[in-house]
Amino acid sequence: MSLTNASPEEAARAAKISSRRLATLPNAARNAALEAVHDALSEARETILAANAKDLELAKQSAANGDLSSSILKRLDLGRKGKYDDMLKGIRDVQGLEDPVGRVDLRTELDDGLVLQRQSCPIGVLLIIFEARPEVIVNIASLAIKSANAAILKGGKESIESFKAISTVISKALEKTDVPNASIQLVTTRDAVDPLLELSQYVDLVIPRGSNELVRYCQRKAHMPVMGHADGLCSIYIHSDADKSMTSNVIVDSKCDYPAACNSLETLLVHEDVLESILPEVASALIAQGVTLRCDNQSRSVLSKHLSQDQTSHIQDAADADYDTEFLDLTLAIRTINSTPQNKADAVDAAIDHINTHGSHHTDGILTSSQEVADRFYNAVDSACKFWNCSTRFCDGMRFGFGTEVGISTNKVHARGPVGLEGLMIHEYRLSGNGQGAAMYGSGGRQFKHKKLPL
Amino acid sequence: MSLTNASPEEAARAAKISSRRLATLPNAARNAALEAVHDALSEARETILAANAKDLELAKQSAANGDLSSSILKRLDLGRKGKYDDMLKGIRDVQGLEDPVGRVDLRTELDDGLVLQRQSCPIGVLLIIFEARPEVIVNIASLAIKSANAAILKGGKESIESFKAISTVISKALEKTDVPNASIQLVTTRDAVDPLLELSQYVDLVIPRGSNELVRYCQRKAHMPVMGHADGLCSIYIHSDADKSMTSNVIVDSKCDYPAACNSLETLLVHEDVLESILPEVASALIAQGVTLRCDNQSRSVLSKHLSQDQTSHIQDAADADYDTEFLDLTLAIRTINSTPQNKADAVDAAIDHINTHGSHHTDGILTSSQEVADRFYNAVDSACKFWNCSTRFCDGMRFGFGTEVGISTNKVHARGPVGLEGLMIHEYRLSGNGQGAAMYGSGGRQFKHKKLPL
Repeated sequence: MSLTNASPEEAARAAKISSRRLATLPNAARNAALEAVHDALSEARETILAANAKDLELAKQSAANGDLSSSILKRLDLGRKGKYDDMLKGIRDVQGLEDPVGRVDLRTELDDGLVLQRQSCPIGVLLIIFEARPEVIVNIASLAIKSANAAILKGGKESIESFKAISTVISKALEKTDVPNASIQLVTTRDAVDPLLELSQYVDLVIPRGSNELVRYCQRKAHMPVMGHADGLCSIYIHSDADKSMTSNVIVDSKCDYPAACNSLETLLVHEDVLESILPEVASALIAQGVTLRCDNQSRSVLSKHLSQDQTSHIQDAADADYDTEFLDLTLAIRTINSTPQNKADAVDAAIDHINTHGSHHTDGILTSSQEVADRFYNAVDSACKFWNCSTRFCDGMRFGFGTEVGISTNKVHARGPVGLEGLMIHEYRLSGNGQGAAMYGSGGRQFKHKKLPL
Repeated sequence: MSLTNASPEEAARAAKISSRRLATLPNAARNAALEAVHDALSEARETILAANAKDLELAKQSAANGDLSSSILKRLDLGRKGKYDDMLKGIRDVQGLEDPVGRVDLRTELDDGLVLQRQSCPIGVLLIIFEARPEVIVNIASLAIKSANAAILKGGKESIESFKAISTVISKALEKTDVPNASIQLVTTRDAVDPLLELSQYVDLVIPRGSNELVRYCQRKAHMPVMGHADGLCSIYIHSDADKSMTSNVIVDSKCDYPAACNSLETLLVHEDVLESILPEVASALIAQGVTLRCDNQSRSVLSKHLSQDQTSHIQDAADADYDTEFLDLTLAIRTINSTPQNKADAVDAAIDHINTHGSHHTDGILTSSQEVADRFYNAVDSACKFWNCSTRFCDGMRFGFGTEVGISTNKVHARGPVGLEGLMIHEYRLSGNGQGAAMYGSGGRQFKHKKLPL
């Protein structure tokens, strides 16, 4: 890794050239580089924590002046118990993953001696823009090396000293390995981002990890694909036949486990039939966790009857905009879903319509005892993740068992939902023959065999 | 299919809504719609050919005025022998493909009763912009219905009467099926394209099928992903150990089988050791097919010695720009690749560097007798398709055995190389539980099982 003072164009060009060398390295060489990085970071613990302390010092001043939130301050601290070791363990975890390069998923004999093969290969050059947490740079560098992608990293200014110290250590460690130094470059100036987002001849994919604003900015400005999600407006619909015994647990977990997360609950849809039987218990449990409820008239009037005065002080009237808002906080919008007199199942469609119209196509859930209703929901909701009878918080690469997570994507192409290492890969075709030309085939000529071969 | 007079926003919104309904239809319902379209087009042959004749009449006038090339004129004619039947057969072919929707490729038991499933689903709304060939509209409508994607189609103005007639027939046929009419909409005004390219809330993917200019325009303007390729600057490198007996055949086929195709050869790289032994025969064969050779000094001076005066009249000096040019015609750039004195294998790297720098990352080939050299080429060339000892013309969805072709992509994400029906699909995650929350897991709590289940 180099801490680059090069121009954005020079840095991107160097990354592209390195990416081709990196793509040819065997897994053993990439793992050896990860080993070297791990050991070097382990040895340099004191130096890096000293640099981190400088970032923290400045951040504390900013926090005292009210320019920085205490949650960001907390995330900056690499010296917190277990954090540095977790960072080191993360390198080992990535090292231990199966090699994602060169996985063959198609082999076809087009004709005698003409064999086609499709296999996974790295994308090329990634531009990864992230915010303050200093350990993310190590995580991303590890993922890039493992997946044989070059990466240009741009981190938030709050961690600048930590980033510089870490990148110096990684750079020195890589020098003794086969991974070219320019494969991982740290860019520290904010004004490098705009030019990099235009260099589509060198940068193949942008991965912004941070605020909605950051993601939207990249989506608007980038001349290459952007992977990620801007919003996480997740909803759960409680159907008329929901199992009351699980409802409060699922809703409270979805909302309160980590309210600032993209997979936390923002809108609760409740079938009219369970306003009386289920919603009061759910509302009590949420209010006990400090949640403010923004309710439509129907749900509010039911709750007013069932809850104490102290509890109802946590209930407000919902405005239309609340159903389009990702609160990222202890606020929840609640809306009643009515059946038509003719058909109770219409309510499922109304809930689906609400979610497809107001949601962000990230993660949405249903609580129902019916497989048929769940299938209707599964098939018609246009979201990356659709959950039945469980918390939206399970939408996560680690929880899904992917070993590591590049991010969560709401894109409709390439990778969608929690993205593991395979989201950093693409495929290539290799065809080997013994002199065949295409003109030999077709009417009157040879016919293709298209015989599937074992992988 | 409706021939839409709606505003671009209304059309796109209607497509989005239809796409959700379409996504829930079983394969049988989509196949029944294809059947209906097939039968209706079969019945309406005379009406459609009459409309096509009007397009042809106008086109002939344009061609006579020099405003339209004769090759476009030829492509417009739906009445040519076998063409209409081929178009109908294309619908049946697509109908017969395996259902691309709902293919499960991952099942994991996260914990007791908490089961994750990943499965294929349609992307949503496709915007497909294409040029004159009238049968393409039928091909694309078939692919969209089969893959359960809604599609907005914009065809070239030269085929406007044919498109209108075809879309009227398809629209009427779909009315009797479960496929919503707004699933397939034909837009006829050129000025609808720019607004559509901005409607990323409704349109999920743009597929331009046509000239480099059209593709570049879409890449520049679209607010959503664009799949395709602008350039097809394909190269072949003849290494020092190439098998002479196959060389002329492969090179002539690559260049001459269809010079206007994106997978035809544009640059020939020749190792210095075979300038005398192989190049003259290759050059003679190319010149016999009417190819003009743009040569560097080294190759030109060898050819001057070996070819007749008549032949050498087809040889010109190459300018630097020729190695960056997609001629799409009977012109070929030739460049000599030299070994360094120390290491003959360095020439392979020089050829690879040339291809990675000057090529378009579409399809590139090598002629060599060595598996080791071929592997070096395979691993280091940054192209969607890498071919060894065969013609670049094999880069094609039909030839690859994909049954149908959406196009050829040089993108580094989603789909790369010839794209079959699977390029119109993305995946979704479905998680079913019985009341689990995420807070139950982690240190001190339950541990995930992450048990792989059979598909």
